[in-house]
Amino acid sequence: MSGNGENMVNKTTQSMKDICVNLLQERGVQIGDIVDIVYDLQKKYVTNLTRGVCEEAIGRVLGKREVQNAILTGIELDMLAEKNMLSEPLQTLISNDNPLYGIDEILVLSICNVYGSIGLTNFGYVDKMKPGIIGKLDALGKATNKCHTFLDDIIGAIAAAAASSVAHNAEED
Amino acid sequence: MSGNGENMVNKTTQSMKDICVNLLQERGVQIGDIVDIVYDLQKKYVTNLTRGVCEEAIGRVLGKREVQNAILTGIELDMLAEKNMLSEPLQTLISNDNPLYGIDEILVLSICNVYGSIGLTNFGYVDKMKPGIIGKLDALGKATNKCHTFLDDIIGAIAAAAASSVAHNAEED
Amino acid sequence: MSGNGENMVNKTTQSMKDICVNLLQERGVQIGDIVDIVYDLQKKYVTNLTRGVCEEAIGRVLGKREVQNAILTGIELDMLAEKNMLSEPLQTLISNDNPLYGIDEILVLSICNVYGSIGLTNFGYVDKMKPGIIGKLDALGKATNKCHTFLDDIIGAIAAAAASSVAHNAEED
Amino acid sequence: MSGNGENMVNKTTQSMKDICVNLLQERGVQIGDIVDIVYDLQKKYVTNLTRGVCEEAIGRVLGKREVQNAILTGIELDMLAEKNMLSEPLQTLISNDNPLYGIDEILVLSICNVYGSIGLTNFGYVDKMKPGIIGKLDALGKATNKCHTFLDDIIGAIAAAAASSVAHNAEED
Repeated sequence: MSGNGENMVNKTTQSMKDICVNLLQERGVQIGDIVDIVYDLQKKYVTNLTRGVCEEAIGRVLGKREVQNAILTGIELDMLAEKNMLSEPLQTLISNDNPLYGIDEILVLSICNVYGSIGLTNFGYVDKMKPGIIGKLDALGKATNKCHTFLDDIIGAIAAAAASSVAHNAEED
Repeated sequence: MSGNGENMVNKTTQSMKDICVNLLQERGVQIGDIVDIVYDLQKKYVTNLTRGVCEEAIGRVLGKREVQNAILTGIELDMLAEKNMLSEPLQTLISNDNPLYGIDEILVLSICNVYGSIGLTNFGYVDKMKPGIIGKLDALGKATNKCHTFLDDIIGAIAAAAASSVAHNAEED
Repeated sequence: MSGNGENMVNKTTQSMKDICVNLLQERGVQIGDIVDIVYDLQKKYVTNLTRGVCEEAIGRVLGKREVQNAILTGIELDMLAEKNMLSEPLQTLISNDNPLYGIDEILVLSICNVYGSIGLTNFGYVDKMKPGIIGKLDALGKATNKCHTFLDDIIGAIAAAAASSVAHNAEED
Repeated sequence: MSGNGENMVNKTTQSMKDICVNLLQERGVQIGDIVDIVYDLQKKYVTNLTRGVCEEAIGRVLGKREVQNAILTGIELDMLAEKNMLSEPLQTLISNDNPLYGIDEILVLSICNVYGSIGLTNFGYVDKMKPGIIGKLDALGKATNKCHTFLDDIIGAIAAAAASSVAHNAEED
């Protein structure tokens, strides 16, 4: 007896999630780095918060198709910019992380919103404060030939959405 | 010969703007309070930033129809909640500023976005840090029978949009 | 004694959903009216689509907290406008369904987006074509002292989100 | 020596706008094609609407930086997909115009919203009905090795935003 519909779904979804997790790692981001941010965002609101709860929330966020699509698209643009393979003036806008480019922030809205509008607040905060890995990626993007224009926003948005998911679950307990 | 079309437009638009400025004042917010926030948000990015430049940007934001509509709607809901005139369970959700209500944040998205997506980042930051008048409104809302569920987000969003407008203009000089 | 946390959650969530379903009925909308719209939106894309599948999708949409909050808030504003209980100029903007008011469309974005961005396309289409109950609500709002400024957008958004949910599930089978 | 700040701004802004207009033409879209859609969207709402008024509105939309950034980014992704230069699975998602990809719709939100939330409704309608050039681009994308995954949404969003601008101006006369 072979795979029924549901198993195939899980397999495909799982694969896309694995592809995204691997891609994040190739670009220098471990899940533990995102756990650090989510934990710091929520520890003062949720009593007895554990890193495991944060990691589960990140897993739920990474399992969503719109999140996977945003990750694949944003990181592709970063990598193409690193290889100088984009047309001008887009190449310069992305490789310089021009503050008025704004498409990076638009792209990650679809991530922020997967657990409701409270994700936006957390995203804005994280995008401004650049805690942990986000600050490191930002500094590397500015100091080296690495391009992290989309990646730092993607990480901030995943963390913000996961924090919202933690908040929703805590509220409902 | 009297008022041509354009003058009438200006008159109407001006009136709506005046209504909003007056309404903010009635609810305890002076334009100078918002200038404080915009100035702090942008001073490290814009050399020689003046309070006058911030105030002009706030004026541009308050002149936009979608901003005026969001102000009128949000403050109305706050005032109805104060008078206990909303139906349950909405009355409790708004008067308690339930963190999962989220409609306050949705409503002010239309304000944040009037000068592009970078307004979102500033909004999230301000909404989390609650500088100046925003922190005062939040504390008053929690300690008294005042309801500022929408007002604090509205002020944060006006400040964020004005900061974006300042940033755009500075970039283009 | 039973009642553990999870049961209480389900009870509360269920109650909010029931409150919303009842409120829609009081305002003249049956779930079957929304099924009609979802079925028409998706029948040409999903082979063997049944009304039951559409109704289940609507149930999933109505079970989401951000959807419940948008329903409660929008219908409250419609009802207050009918009773002439809003301050001017908001009273006139809402009771006349002013096409530049726009807050009705902003409010329902949180509904459209619960199953990803494809909900937006369906919402725009439905908002323009006004099929079934949406056209009836719109006509009643214009011809009588009923106010359906928010309600017609709410119904369109619930239908659009449910259609997205049907599409996602069909794709994954 | 002349060239003051303002002239340089206008020159730069003009150049970006010209780059976008030329890029649209290279991809098979004339401004007149977009005028057709805007005119059809608004003719029943605006008495004595002319094609010139529609063309001016399109010009205002194309003069906005967030619109220019979205055009450059989306068309770049289409062109890279045509050349088979994207990584998998993104290459397949974009070149097949997968209905659950959704990033095309997210990207053009920044265009739709430049004249307020009513742009969303027009966008959804146009995206579903595919009038004029949009239907042609869609058919070409499916029948040939051309990729128009982003382009058709970009054109729909420019038309929707321009229609909103026409509506705002008409209302205010």
